[in-house]
Amino acid sequence: MDRFDSISPLDFRYYAGNRELFGSMNSYLSEAAFIRYQLLVEAKLVEALADFGVCKKEVSDDVANACSGITAKEVYDEEERVGHDVRALVNCIRKRVSDESKPFVHFSATSSDIICTADAARLREAAKALLLPQLMELEKTLICIARREKGTIQIGRTHGQHAEPITFGFAISEYVSRLGSRLLEIEKAASGLRGKMSGAVGNYNASSLFIDDPEKFEAAVLSKLGLSPSTHSTQIVEPEFVADYMHAVVSAFSVIANLADDMRHLQRSEIAEVAESFGQSQVGSSTMPHKRNPINFENVKSMWKAFMPRMTTVYLDQISEHQRDLTNSASSRFVTELVAALVLSANRMNRIMSRLVVDKESMKKNLDHSRGMISAEPAYLLLAAYGHPDAHEFVRKLTLKARNGKEFSELFFSEAAPYVSKMSEMQVAILKNPELYIGIASKKTEAVCDYWENMFEPKHV
Amino acid sequence: MDRFDSISPLDFRYYAGNRELFGSMNSYLSEAAFIRYQLLVEAKLVEALADFGVCKKEVSDDVANACSGITAKEVYDEEERVGHDVRALVNCIRKRVSDESKPFVHFSATSSDIICTADAARLREAAKALLLPQLMELEKTLICIARREKGTIQIGRTHGQHAEPITFGFAISEYVSRLGSRLLEIEKAASGLRGKMSGAVGNYNASSLFIDDPEKFEAAVLSKLGLSPSTHSTQIVEPEFVADYMHAVVSAFSVIANLADDMRHLQRSEIAEVAESFGQSQVGSSTMPHKRNPINFENVKSMWKAFMPRMTTVYLDQISEHQRDLTNSASSRFVTELVAALVLSANRMNRIMSRLVVDKESMKKNLDHSRGMISAEPAYLLLAAYGHPDAHEFVRKLTLKARNGKEFSELFFSEAAPYVSKMSEMQVAILKNPELYIGIASKKTEAVCDYWENMFEPKHV
Amino acid sequence: MDRFDSISPLDFRYYAGNRELFGSMNSYLSEAAFIRYQLLVEAKLVEALADFGVCKKEVSDDVANACSGITAKEVYDEEERVGHDVRALVNCIRKRVSDESKPFVHFSATSSDIICTADAARLREAAKALLLPQLMELEKTLICIARREKGTIQIGRTHGQHAEPITFGFAISEYVSRLGSRLLEIEKAASGLRGKMSGAVGNYNASSLFIDDPEKFEAAVLSKLGLSPSTHSTQIVEPEFVADYMHAVVSAFSVIANLADDMRHLQRSEIAEVAESFGQSQVGSSTMPHKRNPINFENVKSMWKAFMPRMTTVYLDQISEHQRDLTNSASSRFVTELVAALVLSANRMNRIMSRLVVDKESMKKNLDHSRGMISAEPAYLLLAAYGHPDAHEFVRKLTLKARNGKEFSELFFSEAAPYVSKMSEMQVAILKNPELYIGIASKKTEAVCDYWENMFEPKHV
Amino acid sequence: MDRFDSISPLDFRYYAGNRELFGSMNSYLSEAAFIRYQLLVEAKLVEALADFGVCKKEVSDDVANACSGITAKEVYDEEERVGHDVRALVNCIRKRVSDESKPFVHFSATSSDIICTADAARLREAAKALLLPQLMELEKTLICIARREKGTIQIGRTHGQHAEPITFGFAISEYVSRLGSRLLEIEKAASGLRGKMSGAVGNYNASSLFIDDPEKFEAAVLSKLGLSPSTHSTQIVEPEFVADYMHAVVSAFSVIANLADDMRHLQRSEIAEVAESFGQSQVGSSTMPHKRNPINFENVKSMWKAFMPRMTTVYLDQISEHQRDLTNSASSRFVTELVAALVLSANRMNRIMSRLVVDKESMKKNLDHSRGMISAEPAYLLLAAYGHPDAHEFVRKLTLKARNGKEFSELFFSEAAPYVSKMSEMQVAILKNPELYIGIASKKTEAVCDYWENMFEPKHV
Repeated sequence: MDRFDSISPLDFRYYAGNRELFGSMNSYLSEAAFIRYQLLVEAKLVEALADFGVCKKEVSDDVANACSGITAKEVYDEEERVGHDVRALVNCIRKRVSDESKPFVHFSATSSDIICTADAARLREAAKALLLPQLMELEKTLICIARREKGTIQIGRTHGQHAEPITFGFAISEYVSRLGSRLLEIEKAASGLRGKMSGAVGNYNASSLFIDDPEKFEAAVLSKLGLSPSTHSTQIVEPEFVADYMHAVVSAFSVIANLADDMRHLQRSEIAEVAESFGQSQVGSSTMPHKRNPINFENVKSMWKAFMPRMTTVYLDQISEHQRDLTNSASSRFVTELVAALVLSANRMNRIMSRLVVDKESMKKNLDHSRGMISAEPAYLLLAAYGHPDAHEFVRKLTLKARNGKEFSELFFSEAAPYVSKMSEMQVAILKNPELYIGIASKKTEAVCDYWENMFEPKHV
Repeated sequence: MDRFDSISPLDFRYYAGNRELFGSMNSYLSEAAFIRYQLLVEAKLVEALADFGVCKKEVSDDVANACSGITAKEVYDEEERVGHDVRALVNCIRKRVSDESKPFVHFSATSSDIICTADAARLREAAKALLLPQLMELEKTLICIARREKGTIQIGRTHGQHAEPITFGFAISEYVSRLGSRLLEIEKAASGLRGKMSGAVGNYNASSLFIDDPEKFEAAVLSKLGLSPSTHSTQIVEPEFVADYMHAVVSAFSVIANLADDMRHLQRSEIAEVAESFGQSQVGSSTMPHKRNPINFENVKSMWKAFMPRMTTVYLDQISEHQRDLTNSASSRFVTELVAALVLSANRMNRIMSRLVVDKESMKKNLDHSRGMISAEPAYLLLAAYGHPDAHEFVRKLTLKARNGKEFSELFFSEAAPYVSKMSEMQVAILKNPELYIGIASKKTEAVCDYWENMFEPKHV
Repeated sequence: MDRFDSISPLDFRYYAGNRELFGSMNSYLSEAAFIRYQLLVEAKLVEALADFGVCKKEVSDDVANACSGITAKEVYDEEERVGHDVRALVNCIRKRVSDESKPFVHFSATSSDIICTADAARLREAAKALLLPQLMELEKTLICIARREKGTIQIGRTHGQHAEPITFGFAISEYVSRLGSRLLEIEKAASGLRGKMSGAVGNYNASSLFIDDPEKFEAAVLSKLGLSPSTHSTQIVEPEFVADYMHAVVSAFSVIANLADDMRHLQRSEIAEVAESFGQSQVGSSTMPHKRNPINFENVKSMWKAFMPRMTTVYLDQISEHQRDLTNSASSRFVTELVAALVLSANRMNRIMSRLVVDKESMKKNLDHSRGMISAEPAYLLLAAYGHPDAHEFVRKLTLKARNGKEFSELFFSEAAPYVSKMSEMQVAILKNPELYIGIASKKTEAVCDYWENMFEPKHV
Repeated sequence: MDRFDSISPLDFRYYAGNRELFGSMNSYLSEAAFIRYQLLVEAKLVEALADFGVCKKEVSDDVANACSGITAKEVYDEEERVGHDVRALVNCIRKRVSDESKPFVHFSATSSDIICTADAARLREAAKALLLPQLMELEKTLICIARREKGTIQIGRTHGQHAEPITFGFAISEYVSRLGSRLLEIEKAASGLRGKMSGAVGNYNASSLFIDDPEKFEAAVLSKLGLSPSTHSTQIVEPEFVADYMHAVVSAFSVIANLADDMRHLQRSEIAEVAESFGQSQVGSSTMPHKRNPINFENVKSMWKAFMPRMTTVYLDQISEHQRDLTNSASSRFVTELVAALVLSANRMNRIMSRLVVDKESMKKNLDHSRGMISAEPAYLLLAAYGHPDAHEFVRKLTLKARNGKEFSELFFSEAAPYVSKMSEMQVAILKNPELYIGIASKKTEAVCDYWENMFEPKHV
């Protein structure tokens, strides 16, 4: 298949177009990888059969050896003949082993023992090798920006309207914290994934024919893959483990999408506080040569729009009739796409954020735009604290006057003089200069960065 | 890219695994196809420029010629350099034309003029060449089954409980009708797709520099592609045309998924009224050699679970800020996947339904299971019609008695004797033999088949 | 139940809080209304039974009379006893009629005959009386703004970046057109709704016991309600009719949400081109007395976020096993909430848009901000047209220079002098004054308004 | 507002119709409850202000006293005047306190400090008082059924086809385990909810004017409500805490919906292994007096279809621009509906499951239906274990023969005689009697029940 004969944009454009990541994603998320994981499970199953005395050690070695040489194409060709994916896999192994070994290939297992376990293994490792590192890179970049800009005054915005001043570092520390919480959630969900080796209906019918403690056998197979068994299983592992994992993925994606939204709005022509860096030869528009668009921020938001709704499929797949119906089979194959999309978006976001252009002059200019009004909150609070019986209303009316031309602070200092005389020097200073009205922005930024850095220190950073 | 290095199951498994359809789907839904359509739009644009006297006919020929030879790979390589997909396409064309022609490539157009128009053209043709024919094949198969089985008595089921008798043909005619309505909806939505050639913000800023009536020019370009202009456009075509198309696709998918659900439940071991045909060498289970599973019906339902929720993305993409933001760009690229999934599922469904095993004996056996109770409805109605003041309650209590062993009709003919004596021969016969209580099932089945056959006769069949 | 004991914000806040609309919405969307519609269907059923000679005219009058006096509370009390909603309704009617009439209440019908038909009737009328009028009011307001502001120059924005100039009227005409298309879609879908009177499994089992042509009978009952029968029905009407209706509703909602988004972004402090009007005593923030927030635009967007995803429920409800399972019963009751939410949002949007503050000075100021750069597109096009072999690249580099201080047009007129000399006076004027570079904005605005006004003229306006 | 004037089925039908739960749900989920929680937060805020010496203890008592007497109606009436919900609340408190206290009402807080904190408090308490107890009741009922039926043989079903035998207790223990895991998840997410008191943009701008360590002040206010502060906050608490909570709710709902699906399918006329108990006077169908429908199982599935898709709204609400935009305000009000729907469905499910009719005879009859075939798996495995080189294929072909009339075990014992002679007595017994082929069903059932009972013992049971 030619790359451009593909139908999924994920394949032909985003994943295949990302040379940096293609190789590593490939190892966990491609179909070739999935088949490799299935072969690994089949090998470990026979290894445990030997451990439990059901077959000889030579058989186990024979099977392990066979498993290591089988390609995805081989399995697909056999599937075309027998119409069953795991049976095809089993046949491919059987062809490569001795007659003595043949009976023990896949022995006592049902297809889903292999598939569920392989999926748990590769999703867990995809978290470790792809999701967490990519997100951690972004987390580190954000911590770096937050610390660097902890004192950069910026007007805070609620409802898209100027509210009270913050610092740009404080704004970024929001994402340090939210992304940090999602890193923990993904890590926890990944380590919570479970496998199974309990047979066709979860009852250990087959394995109990040959093994006294089939639960112990199941645990033994899985521990060879670093996994534990599902608390209960039918033909399949309880679907909640994957649902929790995907929730962690989707909710992390939303955090990044929110960051992307914030950045692209701050890049609006009229605001211009940040910008994606732009290559000298890069073209912004096919017809408007001057354009500099936040295309990467837009791309991240757009990928989120494409993938977030797929969580509904995950919830639909929590339902499977009786000991299992197959209506979750095709659909659950698409789950890896969600992982891929988040990996790609985290990577893109890190690339862009680490080169983010921050325009402090614009930030200052924008703050100045509302300089007068910003004092309305501290003015009302100080009036109240010093005994004004209706401070909010008094100040609200003053701001109405101020909209008609006069400077708010001028009006305030004249009309609220008796109260002003009671205020401390610092309080008066803040009323005169909104840039001082930033609460504990800088300290809080450092505290948030410290908190999350310490959280991840020993484990990831 | 190796097929098994792909991430999307659509690519490596379903689409690439369907040799019958691969080629034809490829021509409309692959990235190579999309780029071919974009090149076509660029060529038609210059053709119209020549028609309107903006450039020479030779320029137009030069460009058309250049467009016919460009590959997707070429465009992607150039995109890597300039970081803009349509500019890359334009550069590829420019490289192949004379210096005189160069300025007129993409002249007056913005990227979205090309992309929106190419998308409208290929989605419309994908409907004509893929969706409608595949669905029409299924429709014909269903009509054929409905007519054939119009007299095959089957117990009707509501709440999974035996209700009143129908015929299997009548049950299938439900899907003849519902699928028929979706065929119309897809056809209508496909023909409603629109293009644009109104420039960067929809204002015709650029084209009006050179052309007196730029709306006429836009219509001229589009008519060369069999399209009409969007009533209004910004940088992009109004998103509702694609939303309507995708609604038609998704709602058609639901109809097929419902059919798949009905069939797989009728194939349950205890019901066994229908079955997927099963190859002699096909394997049902990797561990249970006797299994015959409705895997194709399950697959269709599962694909629907994977794709139906993506309609949410389509609705999200209806929102684009001001004259357009790019957060609908990546996401809208995935829209073709929905078309692909429906084409594949319709094709699979047709393949399975055309070989559907119908077990009339099972149908009869199941009907007999509730034979007695089925008469409760006509019994109550006839009692009521002949003057019983509380017929429903009278019969409901009789059915309670009948659950404890006695035959309902026996009880009825004894306890309701005075009313029975007033009934017509036919009415008594129906009470004795529920197989007669099938209303106008057969006639209605034929009427539904006729209606939809006539609807499509001249156009598709 | 006290209003504030309610759980749904729709009930206690939005609908109950809208005195203007409460009464009219109540008549179609409340449970009381739904029961009134069901009683109407029951009455019309018996009327038709009389027409077809199954019962006497007196019976029909008796039943019609009984139906007119029954309250929702009465039905709910009876349901508590019998555990079945429609049987409860039937019992309430039966209690009020003579013994002779009793048997003919609900005669030959199944519950869904009543429910599906009542739902079709009230959804259709809710479209006529609520949805279409409210949306039409908004459409008229938008037409009025578009015409008024057709010449008000505004910078067009793509990617949140300044692109090319448009007019504010042209920007609004986008929504005239998109909302117009949705009005047509809702109208079409509403008139497409269908009823049924084909009995328990859609086979006309019951009615055919007494009536020769039960399809004719079904059509007769429905025509009394202004409805037609479903092409095919099982226990229920084909679900696609409601799905199409809800798609029309949701896609219309998205259009309004997009308008709300555009407006709230244009109200950003730094842009300030429009604003919601604000009452003298209205409070913007509980702590920041100066705040003026676009709370109504935000509310509309937020309602869309709450309701748009519910379309997934509609698609889920397209699937019903065999002749019907009841898993679409509770869920389909919530469908009216979607209608209510759109009615409320359209009404709110009209209220706000009709008092929209448009700040032309801000628009001019913002345009001036990018005045220089805007000429890049016409500059490149004119160069190209006059023979420059690489105009886009030439201009792109010029804009890079211009970012470093120099004025773009100054640079251009000096560096591209040979080409400028070939240009027409008008073309040079446009290059000097971007306010002239607005294509056919004004004319297009009028054309769009005319088109949609004519479309609706005879029918609605 | 009359109950039947409501629009939401939740209000007029499910919640208002559940007398048992109405009162307790009301206390957490109604608007009256929400306002009560907001008043509590306002009171605790002033209490902490007194603790920190910003105001006198008398002021705090005055405010606490005022807060205890305010009704929802009062607040809504004031909101109508000022157009701001929290300002209305504040005004209502201010009206009831002394002039000295007035300035300290809501002092230093922004609206969202109150709203986010009140929401965290009531959602956490709704989990403790409603969700967890209702789900725990269901869990206990399931444990009771599982233990009781641990030895009741039932055919296991995969793909709706008979697979291998299990026991009904084992089937139920699936839900003991899955529901158990969701109880933990809800508990964890509920205790993870966070409040805030960090002011308008999360910077502590206001509180730091008066208090040296505003983070300590925030923690103090929240601890009075049993809450902790959000790691970081803007105007609002990080949305992930609520997203995790709602994921726990939705994924628990899916588990219950799956159980409902299993039960309603087991109640199918042809299977009839379980049934909802049915009242003597209950009506099954308005026209088919004999019907006994699984309406409660259907209702639970249907509620899930109505509410599960709303998780998309929760993900949409993770995105809020800059320090907050209000487009998550209306939408987040609907979140309590999801809690209400799960409480109602868990309650209904427990009611039905605790009276579930289990028909062991039907279970036996159904098992016998496939008795012969079931041995195919152990037959293949034993052949393999005793050295047959191609056991799966050998047995698969035998089952094909067996479909044509002959008994599978008869065929097997004759054609595989050499292998049978090597088998143990127990192994031969299992091949002859599939009822013995149930693995460790009974033991596993007990183990699962023990595990979860121990998990919850000290805390909930």
